Amino acid sequence: MKIVVDAFGGDHSPEEVIKGVSLALNKEQGFSIVLTGKKETIQALMQEYGCDKERVEIVDAPEVITNDDTPTLALRQKTNSSLVKCFDILNASEDAKSMVTAGSTGAALTGAVLMLKRIKGILRPGLAPLLPAIKNKNQVMLIDCGAIADPKPQNLVQFAKMGSAFMKAVAKVENPRVGLLSNGSEDSKGNERNKEAFELLKQADINFLGNLEGRDIISGDYDVVVADGFSGNIALKACEGTALGIFKLIKDGIMKGGLRAKLGYLLLKSVFKQIKTKMDYNDNGGAVLLGLKKIVIKSHGSSKAKSICASILQAKQMVDAKVVEKIEEVIEIESSRQD
Amino acid sequence: MKIVVDAFGGDHSPEEVIKGVSLALNKEQGFSIVLTGKKETIQALMQEYGCDKERVEIVDAPEVITNDDTPTLALRQKTNSSLVKCFDILNASEDAKSMVTAGSTGAALTGAVLMLKRIKGILRPGLAPLLPAIKNKNQVMLIDCGAIADPKPQNLVQFAKMGSAFMKAVAKVENPRVGLLSNGSEDSKGNERNKEAFELLKQADINFLGNLEGRDIISGDYDVVVADGFSGNIALKACEGTALGIFKLIKDGIMKGGLRAKLGYLLLKSVFKQIKTKMDYNDNGGAVLLGLKKIVIKSHGSSKAKSICASILQAKQMVDAKVVEKIEEVIEIESSRQD
Repeated sequence: MKIVVDAFGGDHSPEEVIKGVSLALNKEQGFSIVLTGKKETIQALMQEYGCDKERVEIVDAPEVITNDDTPTLALRQKTNSSLVKCFDILNASEDAKSMVTAGSTGAALTGAVLMLKRIKGILRPGLAPLLPAIKNKNQVMLIDCGAIADPKPQNLVQFAKMGSAFMKAVAKVENPRVGLLSNGSEDSKGNERNKEAFELLKQADINFLGNLEGRDIISGDYDVVVADGFSGNIALKACEGTALGIFKLIKDGIMKGGLRAKLGYLLLKSVFKQIKTKMDYNDNGGAVLLGLKKIVIKSHGSSKAKSICASILQAKQMVDAKVVEKIEEVIEIESSRQD
Repeated sequence: MKIVVDAFGGDHSPEEVIKGVSLALNKEQGFSIVLTGKKETIQALMQEYGCDKERVEIVDAPEVITNDDTPTLALRQKTNSSLVKCFDILNASEDAKSMVTAGSTGAALTGAVLMLKRIKGILRPGLAPLLPAIKNKNQVMLIDCGAIADPKPQNLVQFAKMGSAFMKAVAKVENPRVGLLSNGSEDSKGNERNKEAFELLKQADINFLGNLEGRDIISGDYDVVVADGFSGNIALKACEGTALGIFKLIKDGIMKGGLRAKLGYLLLKSVFKQIKTKMDYNDNGGAVLLGLKKIVIKSHGSSKAKSICASILQAKQMVDAKVVEKIEEVIEIESSRQD
């Protein structure tokens, strides 16, 4: 199995990406890496970080797509960019079933949607991060958090089915509990789109628990939270902003609290560290774009080696768990019923 | 000035409401209270909590609207409810310029919209809580967080103008910084509604800073955050859920962390308390419904006396600051320009 990695995507690329590749290769067997980007730089960094050359192939790509580029334009013009090369390899090689990039989200999403094949029957793919659940060690899939700002109710139903299939296959959740993110938990809540989606979800062949509020996303009461990409994105970042904000307030309080507070901090340091690790979903891998024939993992733009490594191992896990095939099965049943 | 208070709204009513009224009366002069609800119960509780009888008028209302009632139906059928009586008093008395309820949000919103007069030119009112800013002592107004799930772009522009007028009048912010909540901070982000609203906001007579992400709502970089009621509600509750979740994790960590962690907690207790007080916007009053000729404050359903007291004093402050008149001015300018 080959995992394609965009060596020049992300704020800390290429250094942290190559370091992350090296970490992943040391950690697990059973896969090789294809790195796209400036060949000489990659070779030098591989040397520096002691990256296993036997398991890495380099595809030269002299151009880089940045966050300042307009996605559609950049994808058309920078055909020799590290990102576009990833898509090319996925299209050309049967054995390359997944890719990881920490580059521009806009370009990665647009590129994947335009250049990669969709699973038959899927209207639009959805971008899905895995978030930590507060009350247990589970993860919660939030789908979609930015692939489509104005989805149709049918898109939401497909997100629910794909998320459900994913959580069964990868997280081994027997009967994933699916909720629809809304402005209240009562059945009558929702905007026009959600009200329509609610009725469709009730009839779908999933374990649909109904509407949920923003406060319950990471509660642990749901395995899959379905949202339109606009409010899903807002919710995700609101959670992130609040978590960072509270940690900042704690830090400020400790700094201003004198010796007493500093001593308290030392005693609680391991507790804080555990919580930070739990809440920092970026460190636990990236968001997966579901609905395509290949697995695309979008790591956070600020990803460091640890996070890139996690994304690579996540990609391997998803291919091993046959996520694409499982989604194909679910969607095929749907299409055959409609025939 | 009379402030009308729904004595039978909220999970802890009527006890905590009467206690809150008593607190508010002790704290400030210059206003009186009209309490609606079961007269005898109110009288007994006023006696118990030492409530100043001279400054309280009771309007008997034997019925109660609960969270289990369907708002529109309950408003029509329970005309003798404590909530409907509040609206009646606001409509009948010139001197009653504001009301406070901790009852059903659905019924309070629907009732206010249906039964109270709107400010001339306002298409729809917006529900606006005041949130704590992380980096300073400011408050951030989030408007709307649930009054309309599917607003038109023009509604968002009016929310921006009302929020701006409010922050000028009440929080004394000279030139309130207004942002549009979106799925990214770039100008090109947004769903169809927001993209249209963005263009209108650029031309509006406010200090519009552009789109903001969910993570920046409570950053302190904005005074007014404009949102559609659907994603505004989701964002608000996502912030709330994350804050509660982190406090729970800290508590669990301390409980499991043995003596060392417990000692650490004792030393940091005052820091935690400060943060909890700062983050708990419910304790700092309620959400205000802007766009009506009277001020309606919706306290959290779980409000206790302290929160009811804060909402009452907030209502007084808003009437003193002539919020309704200030909004009328802004909207009048708008209408006259369009003529």
